[in-house]
Amino acid sequence: MAYDDQNIFAKILTGELPALKVYEDDQVLAFMDIMPQADGHTLVIPKAPATTLLDLDPEIAAYTIQVVQKIAKAIESALDAKGIVLMQLSGAAAGQTVPHVHFHLIPSSIHQLGRHAATPGDPAVIQAFADKIKAALATQ
Amino acid sequence: MAYDDQNIFAKILTGELPALKVYEDDQVLAFMDIMPQADGHTLVIPKAPATTLLDLDPEIAAYTIQVVQKIAKAIESALDAKGIVLMQLSGAAAGQTVPHVHFHLIPSSIHQLGRHAATPGDPAVIQAFADKIKAALATQ
Repeated sequence: MAYDDQNIFAKILTGELPALKVYEDDQVLAFMDIMPQADGHTLVIPKAPATTLLDLDPEIAAYTIQVVQKIAKAIESALDAKGIVLMQLSGAAAGQTVPHVHFHLIPSSIHQLGRHAATPGDPAVIQAFADKIKAALATQ
Repeated sequence: MAYDDQNIFAKILTGELPALKVYEDDQVLAFMDIMPQADGHTLVIPKAPATTLLDLDPEIAAYTIQVVQKIAKAIESALDAKGIVLMQLSGAAAGQTVPHVHFHLIPSSIHQLGRHAATPGDPAVIQAFADKIKAALATQ
C-alpha cells in the first residue's frame, strides 16, 4: 500500500505535530497514545515510512521489536504493570486508524481495555505516565 | 519469571504434543491456534525457552518478528485477509494463557474477534487454513 506522508504519525516524525515522547533514536520513536486504552498506553514506531508491518523492511522490524522490548520493560517497572499487551494492527479492517506502522504497548489486562482509538485521555495524566516511563528507561 | 518447561508449547516443541505446523526452522515454529479467535488464527513462537516478550533474548526477538512478517504475508495472500491483528500477551494479567512467549496473528477485523483462548475450533477447518497458509509460504 502506498504510504501517505500526511498521516499524523508522519507529522509527529517531522515535528509538525507534537507528541509526548518517551524514547527516540535515529530509527525509532516511542510516545504516549493520546487516546489510551489503559493508563500508560504507549506507541512505538519505526521512523521509516511504512504503512503496515507487512510493508516494513525486515531489518527495521527487527530493531523496532527490540525497542518494543525495552519500552515494555520500562512500563513494567515504571507502572508496576502485572501484564503488558502488545498489539499491532495492520490494515483498516484490523482496526488500524493511522496508516504508519505502530506497535501498541498497553499495561495490565486486555480484559479491561477501552475501545481502540475511541476517547482522548487527560493530557496531564498521560504526561505523568510518560515521565514515569522515561525515568524507568533512564535507569535501564 | 522462571520458565515452566511443562507448558503446552514446550511440549509441542519437544514433540510430546501435536500441532498443525505451518512453518518451522531452527529458531522459530508457527502453528495454528486450536482455539481460533478468527479463521486462520496462527501462532508464532521462538523455540528458545522464554515466558514473555520481556524475557526473550533480543536477538531471538529480532528474528522472530521477521518470521511473523513472513507468516503475516502468507496469511494475507492465502486467506485474502483485509487486515491482520498481531497480538502478544505478556503475563497472565494481560491474558497470556500459555507461559511460553507467543505472537498471535489473527486475520481480518479485531472488532469481530472471539474471546481469547475460549472455544476449540473445528480441527478440519483449522487444517484447511493451515494448508492454505503453507501453500502461500511455499510460493514466497
